[in-house]
Amino acid sequence: MTLFLGASLILLSQNHPNLILTKEGVKEIKKNLGTVPLFDDVLTKIKAEVDAEIKIGVQVPIPKDMAGGYTHERHKQNFFILRKAGNLYQITGDKKYAEYIRQNLLAYAKMFPSLPKHPTDRSYATGKIFWQCLNDANWLVYVSQAYDCVYDYMSKEERDFVEKDLFRPLAEWISTDNPKFFNRVHNHSTWANAGVGMIGLVMNDEELIQRALYGLKNDGLNNTMLDNDGGFIKVEGQNAAGFFAQLDYSFSPDGHFTEGPYYLRYAMTPFLLFAKSLANNRPDLKIYDYRNGILEKSIYSLLYESDAQGRFFPINDSQKGMSWNSREVVAAVDIAYLDFGNDPMLLSIAEKQGKVTLDEAGFKTAADLEKGLTKPFKHKSIAYSDGADGKHGGLGILRADNNDGEEICVVAKYAAHGMGHGHFDKLSYSLYDEDGEVIQDYGAARWVNIDQKGGGRYLKENQTFAKQSIAHNTLVINETSHYEGKVKKAEANHPDQYFFDVKNPKVQAVSAKELHAYTDAVMHRTLILLKDENFKNPILIDVFRVESESKNQYDFPIWFHGHLLSTSFDYTTQTNRLTTLGNGHGYQHIWEEASGKSSSESNQVTWFTHQSSGGGEVNGKLFTMTTSSEKNDELIFARSGANDPSFNLRHDPVFIQRRKGGNSIFASVIESHGTYNPVSETPLSPFSGLKSVEVIHDSKEYTVIRISHNSKKTWTVAIANQDASEKAKHQIKIGKEMLEWTGAFYIQ
Amino acid sequence: MTLFLGASLILLSQNHPNLILTKEGVKEIKKNLGTVPLFDDVLTKIKAEVDAEIKIGVQVPIPKDMAGGYTHERHKQNFFILRKAGNLYQITGDKKYAEYIRQNLLAYAKMFPSLPKHPTDRSYATGKIFWQCLNDANWLVYVSQAYDCVYDYMSKEERDFVEKDLFRPLAEWISTDNPKFFNRVHNHSTWANAGVGMIGLVMNDEELIQRALYGLKNDGLNNTMLDNDGGFIKVEGQNAAGFFAQLDYSFSPDGHFTEGPYYLRYAMTPFLLFAKSLANNRPDLKIYDYRNGILEKSIYSLLYESDAQGRFFPINDSQKGMSWNSREVVAAVDIAYLDFGNDPMLLSIAEKQGKVTLDEAGFKTAADLEKGLTKPFKHKSIAYSDGADGKHGGLGILRADNNDGEEICVVAKYAAHGMGHGHFDKLSYSLYDEDGEVIQDYGAARWVNIDQKGGGRYLKENQTFAKQSIAHNTLVINETSHYEGKVKKAEANHPDQYFFDVKNPKVQAVSAKELHAYTDAVMHRTLILLKDENFKNPILIDVFRVESESKNQYDFPIWFHGHLLSTSFDYTTQTNRLTTLGNGHGYQHIWEEASGKSSSESNQVTWFTHQSSGGGEVNGKLFTMTTSSEKNDELIFARSGANDPSFNLRHDPVFIQRRKGGNSIFASVIESHGTYNPVSETPLSPFSGLKSVEVIHDSKEYTVIRISHNSKKTWTVAIANQDASEKAKHQIKIGKEMLEWTGAFYIQ
Repeated sequence: MTLFLGASLILLSQNHPNLILTKEGVKEIKKNLGTVPLFDDVLTKIKAEVDAEIKIGVQVPIPKDMAGGYTHERHKQNFFILRKAGNLYQITGDKKYAEYIRQNLLAYAKMFPSLPKHPTDRSYATGKIFWQCLNDANWLVYVSQAYDCVYDYMSKEERDFVEKDLFRPLAEWISTDNPKFFNRVHNHSTWANAGVGMIGLVMNDEELIQRALYGLKNDGLNNTMLDNDGGFIKVEGQNAAGFFAQLDYSFSPDGHFTEGPYYLRYAMTPFLLFAKSLANNRPDLKIYDYRNGILEKSIYSLLYESDAQGRFFPINDSQKGMSWNSREVVAAVDIAYLDFGNDPMLLSIAEKQGKVTLDEAGFKTAADLEKGLTKPFKHKSIAYSDGADGKHGGLGILRADNNDGEEICVVAKYAAHGMGHGHFDKLSYSLYDEDGEVIQDYGAARWVNIDQKGGGRYLKENQTFAKQSIAHNTLVINETSHYEGKVKKAEANHPDQYFFDVKNPKVQAVSAKELHAYTDAVMHRTLILLKDENFKNPILIDVFRVESESKNQYDFPIWFHGHLLSTSFDYTTQTNRLTTLGNGHGYQHIWEEASGKSSSESNQVTWFTHQSSGGGEVNGKLFTMTTSSEKNDELIFARSGANDPSFNLRHDPVFIQRRKGGNSIFASVIESHGTYNPVSETPLSPFSGLKSVEVIHDSKEYTVIRISHNSKKTWTVAIANQDASEKAKHQIKIGKEMLEWTGAFYIQ
Repeated sequence: MTLFLGASLILLSQNHPNLILTKEGVKEIKKNLGTVPLFDDVLTKIKAEVDAEIKIGVQVPIPKDMAGGYTHERHKQNFFILRKAGNLYQITGDKKYAEYIRQNLLAYAKMFPSLPKHPTDRSYATGKIFWQCLNDANWLVYVSQAYDCVYDYMSKEERDFVEKDLFRPLAEWISTDNPKFFNRVHNHSTWANAGVGMIGLVMNDEELIQRALYGLKNDGLNNTMLDNDGGFIKVEGQNAAGFFAQLDYSFSPDGHFTEGPYYLRYAMTPFLLFAKSLANNRPDLKIYDYRNGILEKSIYSLLYESDAQGRFFPINDSQKGMSWNSREVVAAVDIAYLDFGNDPMLLSIAEKQGKVTLDEAGFKTAADLEKGLTKPFKHKSIAYSDGADGKHGGLGILRADNNDGEEICVVAKYAAHGMGHGHFDKLSYSLYDEDGEVIQDYGAARWVNIDQKGGGRYLKENQTFAKQSIAHNTLVINETSHYEGKVKKAEANHPDQYFFDVKNPKVQAVSAKELHAYTDAVMHRTLILLKDENFKNPILIDVFRVESESKNQYDFPIWFHGHLLSTSFDYTTQTNRLTTLGNGHGYQHIWEEASGKSSSESNQVTWFTHQSSGGGEVNGKLFTMTTSSEKNDELIFARSGANDPSFNLRHDPVFIQRRKGGNSIFASVIESHGTYNPVSETPLSPFSGLKSVEVIHDSKEYTVIRISHNSKKTWTVAIANQDASEKAKHQIKIGKEMLEWTGAFYIQ
């Protein structure tokens, strides 16, 4: 069977390139060179870059370094340059590019058979060329494209040599030799599947193609095995592997990626490149239609899960600053534009990126940009489900503009655990404005590719701090992280969306419940983004309800991004001695700086955002959190950075409300009210417009809070805690007043 | 005499406006409206702004608030708007603007006689409309211009009323009633002189004019009196006052302002507006030629004392972020362009500012910009002397570009004390690149106009931390600030420039000595900016020599701006308990975080700059300090923020070398070697190119250090410690090698 299919494919294979570039695509590009400025610009830049490398000459060192070290960075540079050289050869016809690839491939093929496992031996799946199979797979995804471009340039003997001594053994190494790496549903394995599949397509090796699509038959894996990030290799009850399994299990039905956008961005490359290769070579698979167009949906989920500047929400393990400008998103946008219906909004992103891929997709994108077909990309409020079945909680994004078009965006995270990269942050939220973070998610404790920080890998503090609940904006009970900080427990459960309602752009809300993070507590958070003429910007109303029969200690942290300006309550600062907030679950990494007692039913904290240290002139901003309090609430100011022997953590401030109790409500409002320009030195609206936030009713059925403005205007917010149906009618007596409404919540 | 001059001026006074606007200037502008887009744009925006205020109506509340509070901000807004309305009336002829001013002036005149001293009573010179006379003087400088514009619009009776009940008593209040404020050489007094003089010119009140120019005759002041900033009201042996005294004593002969550019920017407004008023009305005074054109020189010193982005070096008391974009600099650039020879480089600054003043100077600037006459403004290496006689030390600025045109700039501060705003930072330096701060000057502990932080005034921590020596990049002996932190001692002395040599753009150097900051120590620092093909960017070589017969503790702090990445030495971190570095002189405000011992003759510290939190995508950068060490040097990492009960301080990191000794050398190199983009996640040159920095000779006569590169290349730097003459010949034997050179220093 394999043999037969292989034979039938030989005919197609005469048509190199056929993986990402195609003969027809190349013809179209060649015909129009000089007419599309952005594409010509990309061509010129890439030429200069590759020419400089050709001048240096072929560099294929014996692998020895970790990420950040010379051999790692050199081999990484090689695969990027080889792919570019391949495209240049096809587009310009200049043989020096083909020759450079040929020489590289021969050098790699000469070295490869003698390579032992990479000497670092620090990965759950150590590579040959790199310290981990993952990077080997990256190499193969890129170099298979280069090989495709020079397939006809190389002699049969040379092809046989590089296929026998380089490509096939490398494909074996990252598949049969490392089943933990290959046969898993994970972004690592997607790279493995794509690398094996793409080189299989170039070589017409049907066995490799089948393996890439459907995985290894017998992998000998079990569900106690862990990867380096503490993630499980196998999820209980799920045995499929290979590319189709990735498509089946990596995404929710609406395209959300459980690890979050930082990793989706990374995984997008193998997903799209292998898919495009299959679309070009195996149209019968209808890969773009698979799961109702899951690939297209995933690209949009990636774009929507970003702040106003296109920086991805740093949920789970994410390095901050990653954005739409990454090469992976450039490629995704171009492919999506070409293959998924020429959405003109994508052109505005391509325009901001200022570059396109050096292939047909990039050409089409640049050409249509030049034709002025672009429409502005507009972020929108959207809820994503999580889990392959869409029933494992999700991510709720609320966005509203002020009258100047500046945005407030709240990201409610009630998603599944996100595998090895998941954080114990059930029902947490983060808040953004048009500039960036207002209430931050810490992201990962990692400096990707910076050798000096643990070889660029995840740092110990990622586990001990960044993943822990107290590092997030959510409730922590009895100084213990959700699910006791155990991945297995967290993966076995998830929060659930209670309602998501964005029909009225002036009152948008998301609500979710988490029943299992603590054995004896139910947590329920509702976030409402309210646009009202009394406020310059939309305000965030946060109602966090916890129900428990035990007497607990509750910590309610808000990681405000800025410098504390003032409070409505007195506090005592630790002036000449600091100690940690606790001893475990991330508390050991937090310095306790000051603490006060609530003196009224409502308290305020005002902070100031830092100025940009970069070139631009950025207005400072003033924010106030107004929060309901109970008598004896302890109000704590603290800062990350304790128990950090190698200075791996940022020193960021947090405000924590601490309360002892059983059933309890933390109700608060975050208001962006003021600005301050360091040049004019004039503060505009430096004070909050709010007087108080109070809980005026709480029962199993209903929670009601009252928000009072200095102008005497008040708002009453009521939440039906047990019935989120849109049609349910509710009524409740508050003092002498009867509150009546239909639907999950009420605000007036 | 007064009467006679007054009479002669009445003739001129028929010609209102004549203060800043002139009849001829207005005619020229009117004639060309609609032809100069930038000017038209400014006109449109200011119209919209003033129209909005006119719609609100006249608001003249009884004064009661501190800065940041309503009445303060309202009266401040009023004087800006009134000046704008005056210009609008003149340029558009629309009487609604004149009417708005008239109504305001009548309202102020009605209120003023009943005003007591401002109820806050917290200033050494409390105002009437504002909490300090300073703001009252600001008001008068602006409103006198508005009055000038509507002088002919108002009736004689109305003029008599506002002059008698508002302008004259206010002028008295800020002069004869507050001699401490008026009769001093200080930026505050410049405002006072200008306000009194400008309203004097409008009203033809020669007595006020003479007072403004020459001060009060008998002020009853003595040299023990202090202002709110701890500055002395009177400097010993200097009794002159008034505007000419400001011109005589505020600047060095080359235009440097002893308080630094942040305050010069602020003082520039009264200097230039009053000078321009005098130039228009008293051409006989030849005010622009005074002291060889000191006003023109001062504008250029303001422009040159800024980083590549035009942000002022935050030496002495300065709030960071203040820049060329401030309204004061817009006005200064426009006036300089019109009145000081149409320097085309100024147009490029006006272009970046994107605005011009709504008067003849702004019109001319905008018109010539439109004509394309602009040339790029290029910062340059320059030394400024300090003190009215130019013999009180100075400021040495070295600047060099890398091959991409990106700048490294070092600012060596060996200036006089800077009066009440001076810091105890003799021989300190700060370092900048094209983005901003690399080695920072803390600036002031103040949040200007932010009411929540002490009413926007200087905070206690400004005195106890920001001014202290340990808060700066200079040597601190025995945990005691320079001059024991006493202003009087510091004002009586100053460092001296030893040499400044920027003839060779590849090797620029500045050297200075401080003999009096400590009774038993002489300090001598030499900073060399070296541009060499072995480094991507110019490197800074720092040789700090201290000579003392005592056995001292030396602390050599470097306030690196970023996150610690790695060190070449081991250190022990305070993991779960922090204490302060000391008990006074700023040490009480510093947490000691980690400490290690020098293990070799040379040590390295590498740090990473933070990403911008603003919209732009900014590359991170990697810097390394390589420093010579002695055995048993203690290497300390610490952070500001201790003993800070109200969170007034930033929490910034510092690296401190601590050494016990007598004569000693701290030699180090700061290298900007790497970049890191959070989107590509690729570090470029993450490691320093240097191997070591060693002191290979030190004697009273000579200091020699050796810098070794990983490539084996070395540099020898020799400094003649006792003879800085360019022609002196030196020779010294280092091991077997004879080093011979001519001039103050040698590098090869």
